[in-house]
Order: sequence, then structure tokens, then C-alpha cells
Amino acid sequence: MEYKILNKENIVEYINLIENVRDFFSGDDLYIDEIGDGNLNYVFIIKSIKDPKKALILKQAVPYLRCIGEDYPLSKERMTFESRALKQFSSITNEFIPKIYHVSEQMSCVIMQYLESHVIMRDGLINRVIYPNFSEHISTFLAQNLFKTSSLYLDSKTKRELVDKFNSNSELCKLTEDFVFTFAFMEHDTNDSYAKGHALANELFNNTKFKIEVLKLKYKFMNQNDALLHGDLHTGSIMLNEKDTYIIDPEFSFVGPFGFDIGALIGNLIMSYTSHVALNIKDDYNKWILKTIEDVLVKFNDKFLYLWNQKDESSLIVSGFINENDLNDYKKDFMLNILQDSIAYAGCKMARRMFGIAGVADIRDIEDDETKDHAIKMTLEIAREFVKNRKNIKKISTVINIIKEKTK
Amino acid sequence: MEYKILNKENIVEYINLIENVRDFFSGDDLYIDEIGDGNLNYVFIIKSIKDPKKALILKQAVPYLRCIGEDYPLSKERMTFESRALKQFSSITNEFIPKIYHVSEQMSCVIMQYLESHVIMRDGLINRVIYPNFSEHISTFLAQNLFKTSSLYLDSKTKRELVDKFNSNSELCKLTEDFVFTFAFMEHDTNDSYAKGHALANELFNNTKFKIEVLKLKYKFMNQNDALLHGDLHTGSIMLNEKDTYIIDPEFSFVGPFGFDIGALIGNLIMSYTSHVALNIKDDYNKWILKTIEDVLVKFNDKFLYLWNQKDESSLIVSGFINENDLNDYKKDFMLNILQDSIAYAGCKMARRMFGIAGVADIRDIEDDETKDHAIKMTLEIAREFVKNRKNIKKISTVINIIKEKTK
Repeated sequence: MEYKILNKENIVEYINLIENVRDFFSGDDLYIDEIGDGNLNYVFIIKSIKDPKKALILKQAVPYLRCIGEDYPLSKERMTFESRALKQFSSITNEFIPKIYHVSEQMSCVIMQYLESHVIMRDGLINRVIYPNFSEHISTFLAQNLFKTSSLYLDSKTKRELVDKFNSNSELCKLTEDFVFTFAFMEHDTNDSYAKGHALANELFNNTKFKIEVLKLKYKFMNQNDALLHGDLHTGSIMLNEKDTYIIDPEFSFVGPFGFDIGALIGNLIMSYTSHVALNIKDDYNKWILKTIEDVLVKFNDKFLYLWNQKDESSLIVSGFINENDLNDYKKDFMLNILQDSIAYAGCKMARRMFGIAGVADIRDIEDDETKDHAIKMTLEIAREFVKNRKNIKKISTVINIIKEKTK
Repeated sequence: MEYKILNKENIVEYINLIENVRDFFSGDDLYIDEIGDGNLNYVFIIKSIKDPKKALILKQAVPYLRCIGEDYPLSKERMTFESRALKQFSSITNEFIPKIYHVSEQMSCVIMQYLESHVIMRDGLINRVIYPNFSEHISTFLAQNLFKTSSLYLDSKTKRELVDKFNSNSELCKLTEDFVFTFAFMEHDTNDSYAKGHALANELFNNTKFKIEVLKLKYKFMNQNDALLHGDLHTGSIMLNEKDTYIIDPEFSFVGPFGFDIGALIGNLIMSYTSHVALNIKDDYNKWILKTIEDVLVKFNDKFLYLWNQKDESSLIVSGFINENDLNDYKKDFMLNILQDSIAYAGCKMARRMFGIAGVADIRDIEDDETKDHAIKMTLEIAREFVKNRKNIKKISTVINIIKEKTK
């Protein structure tokens, strides 16, 4: 089928062509609504009028960046990478990925399970909802997918084939290169108007030591093929409730550095934390966020190492090459590197959200400027420490202490 | 044309089908000889009987590793990567690549310029020939190709397309993973019989600090996409005379870490040096080798930096992102990292040649065992220093001093 942009009016006609979806709704009259508030794509909900619990999500990429408009062309082939990533993640951690009903590369569209009782995690955090299973779930997702798509698990050829599948996601990688690592740290017309003449923005834009470290992290983002990444794992790419956790929207997926997804997640949890501190919420909720940050890092480390210890031989380590004690030292060092990269990427992700395009609602929506600036200031202080001093951070507890220290 | 293995008898029939090659010989009677002494492929020379200066080289990949035999199957598609690399290198540094007359992916074969007055550099070094232009040429080749296939020069999409072209060279990458980074540092049945019970081999195999560093370098080899590499740039992959320098045999080409080719080259020059020291050649020849090692490193650094300074904007560095002084600090640090990686890879390459498969003639062909062991010992001492202490080496002069110190 030739590509056309779907809308509330022509969606029914389209999905009637898809057996799988037709069967799902078994002839019910349908109600269609647009629910997308993402930056890139259109998202619709399709519901049976008779039985509104019978519902699916349709997501379609358009040939431009939705949040900027047709002036910012962007290949709709990004949906190809999203569907490949959904498949790959499902094959490893099925329980955290919405069920897929239909994928069309021509139509750049995917139809999947509607998560009816789940909310976008960012909204949940803003509304101070506690998710008791979250750190357990996300650490499993991260450890399983990062380990099992790396050279520590795959043979050398399979790893290269994985790289092949995602390597051409150039446009979305470039968006990250530009908007996460570059424009948000200099005067640029895509930045938020709040940056204009703001003392904290000026300080950030002139912090060359910080920016040199950002260059190093950007270089690593562009050139290091550790494992398959979601590529944009902030709290807006997670839907959950008290029971389940789902990962959505992996259109930025590519094979990149281990720490990038972990960093995106940790950075966004920290921005939630600083926003609540600035808003003077000193209750148990903040304790839960901080504990969650620590738990994600600790559990990721333990689960990744557990998987590694189960695997005697890999393309990297041939059995008999090195004795177990020395191998354990190597692993410890390897995990420390992942931690240091993770918090450095967290720092980049946090700092870029302060004045760059697409700020986070947690902070940007704070109405009182003084309170907002307080949140920005704390966030930037943590970010700077993470980016500039990552090599001196040797323990997860130090990461937590830095967050506490800078938000006292 | 369906693949078949060429030999002295059926080559004429094959090349008569190729217009370009038929024209080259304009109907002359031909003389064919096999000249290959490589590890992987068959190489033939095709000469006009009337005018022996009219000659071409035909190189064909067979579906196994030639030096081991049919028991070690190896995809003949490796020739695809060789021809792609020859094209890519030619497009940047035409003067150092033999002229290509014919490429056939089906036949896994390439026909190219015969370098009649040039010898394999390893043989030249063994015979103590001085090549006054070599450091100038090879530093240009390395700087131009490494810089212009990196994210410091290419836009982000073109870089990913380059990775695509070479990413599937899995089998040859795996050969390097196995034979350069693994088997040569442990008891393994592919090792040279000379290793059996040799004290220096035992010492090497039990040097776990060294081997942990080798693991790190292997991991980087497998996962870091800096630039297009030749992949096997030892002195057997260079043909030259006093005037010209040609790079041949890039079947191991892939996009990998900057330091790998430089390291291969430097490591092989050092093995030539230690062999001459062990053989008690204390004349000007050794001074020339040492000067050449230094010149290659210095000139590479200068030429790479020169190219970088010409280029205001790249996928990594957007103009206006950072001021020039700070950028210069970043570049200095970047170049130091390349130097440290280069000597570390030199160390791996040297050490693996001592007891692993395919030793270097410079040392393995030394007849007197005591002299040979002296060469091995010096080589391993330099290699260990390079691999284990690379991060403490901040200057090229230190590299040279280490070589001098360990061969006193």
C-alpha cells in the first residue's frame, strides 16, 4: 500500500484491510481519537464503541518532525527501526513491550496493544504516584537487553548483523547528536525562549570544561557499538501502573554505548526529584524517587553481572584465556565504566533539557519562575558534577550523595 | 560467471573474457606464475612473453584459509571488502594504491597493477634497505584515510553508510579477534611449536595484568567505529622501493579504532628493529628504523591535526560550539589517545607474533635459538610496557626511549 498520512477519518478504511486487526475488533463499530503528544509522530487510539476496553493504538510516522512541523523534514523510515527494536526487545523481555498487531514499513505505521490502565511515567511522577515494581522491572529490561545484544553475549558475526539492522537510523541519531549534545549548550534558535539572557543559561553555554566532556560523550555516542539501545529512554517513553511497566517509542534505537539508556532514565528521574525539591515537597515521595534511582543502578549492576557470570564463553572472552579472579577484576572495572558513562549521559540529558528544545514538563511547567530557576540550578549542578567528575565516582552511593548534596 | 578456483592453466581463458585486461595485453602471448606467499589467498602474475614489463597481478580468494588449508573454511566474500577498501583508499590517496583493472565479486578476484620494481617491505627490512620516503608516504596515507573516514570529517549519515559497507566483514574481524587478541596469549593448538614449554611463552601466557589490558583492547577493536582501517597493516602489506610506497591486501578492512593500523605498522617496524639488535647489527640501519618509527608517529600526528584544523565543522563539532583554545585542548587530548591506543595495539601485534600462528620472518627465521630468544625477549618487554603502561606515555619521545631502553 502506498504511503499516505492517516487521520481520524481514513483510519477505519485502512485497518479494515488488516486481517489481524479486523479479527480483533470482530466487526464492532469503531471510535477513533488522536492522542499523540509526542515530539515526532501521530498516535491514535482505536476503540470498539460497544466495548471500549477493546482498543488498539496506531502510531504513524510522518515525513517531518511533528513538534516542529513540515519545515523540519525527517524520514518516515524511522518507524522501521522502531518496529525492529520492538521485535528485538520482545524477543528478550516480552513482558515489558506492548503486544504488536501489525507493522507496515510502507505505511510507516505500527498497531499495538492499548495500555488502558497505564500512564506515561512522567505524568505519574509529576502527580507523585509511587510505582513499587518499577526499579525491579526496568533494571531487568536494561540488564537483559544491554547484555544480550553486546559482545559479552553474542558471537562476533551475530553482533555485526545486529549493528547492520540499526546502523542506518542516521536521522534520529543525528537528532540526538544535535539536540542532546550540541544546540542545548550554545546560543541556538531552536532553544527555549526562556534561555534568552538567563544567567544560568549563559553560565552553561560558557562552561567550556563541561562542554569538552560533552564532546567526548558525543563522540562515544557516535562511535561506540556496545549494545542495542532504546535511544530515548526518558520517563515519557515508559508507560506503567503500580503493577506493570511497558517500554514504548524506540524509534531512536541503534547500537550505541551501554550507559546511554541508563543515563537517560536516571537523568529524568533526577529531574523529577529536583522539581519536587524546588516545589518544596519534602515527603516520602522524594525518598521513594531517590531510592528508585539507587535501586535501578544497583539492580542493573547485579543483574547484568549475574547474566555475565552465567556465560562462560563469548566473542570477547574465550574460556581458558584468563583465570577467574582476574576475570572478576576485569568485570568489576567494566561495570564501573558503565556506571561512570551512565551518570555522565544522565548529566548531558539533564542539562540539555534545561534550555534546549523539548524541555521536561516536570520543570518547564513550574509556573513560578523563582521555583523553576531553583529546580534548574540544582539540576545543572548535579549534571555538571556527573559530566565533569564521572571518573572520580567509584560507587553508586556516591551518585546518591551527590544528588542529596546538591539539593540540600 | 560462476565461481571457480583459478590456476595457472585456466587463468588465460578467464582474463580473455575481460575487455579491460585483454586490451592491456593487446593479444600478446601470456606467461602465468603463482607468486602468492600470503596467508589467505592465491596470487598470480600475468606477463606478456614478448614484453615482460607488461604485467598484471591477479588475486583470488578461496573458500578457506590458505595457510591452514581446506580444514579452515573462510568465506571468499572477503575479496568484496578488499575491493571496497581499495576503492575507498584510492579515492582519498590514489598515489599509494595499485591501479585496479578488474574486480569480480562472483569470482572473488581482483586484477591490478604489477609493482615490478617494488618489494614487500618486510623483505626489504630484513635485507636492510633504507626507504627514505617511507615515513612521509605512510603518514600521509594514515592521516588522510583515518581522518577522512572519521566523524571528525564525514557527516553523520555518510559515516554510517561507510560503516554499512564494511560491517559484514565478520569473518576476517573474527580472525583478528582470535589470532591477534586471544590464542597467541594462551596454550592453543594453533600456536607455533616453538612456544611449547618455552619459558618466555609461559611467562606471557601467565601475565594476567597484560592479558586484562589485551581484553580491553580487543573489546575496543570489536566495538569502536572510529575510521576505516586497512585491518592488517604490517610490513608484509606494504610494497615499496626507494621512491614509491604502495598499500596492498586490505581484506581485513573494517571501521575500527584509530590506533589499530598505526599500531600494526609501528609494531612490525619494532620487530624489525629488535631482530637487527639481536643479530648484533649496530650500524646506521637501526638508527634509520628508529628514526622512521618516530617520524611516522610525529608526521601522522601533524598531518592528522593539520587536516582537522582545516575543517571548521563536522558531525562532531559544530562551529560556535566551543572556543578555539578549548577546542585545541580537546584535539591535543584526542591525539594523545590515538597515540596511546596505537602503541597498545603495537604491543598486542608484537606479542602475538612471538608464539602465535604466522610469526614474522624477521624474528622467526633467525636460525640461532639464543639470538632468536634475545629478539623475542626484547620484543615482549617493549610490548608489555606499551600495553600495560600506555596511559602513562604522554609523548612520542617516550615511546622511542622505551624501545631504546629495552634493547640496550
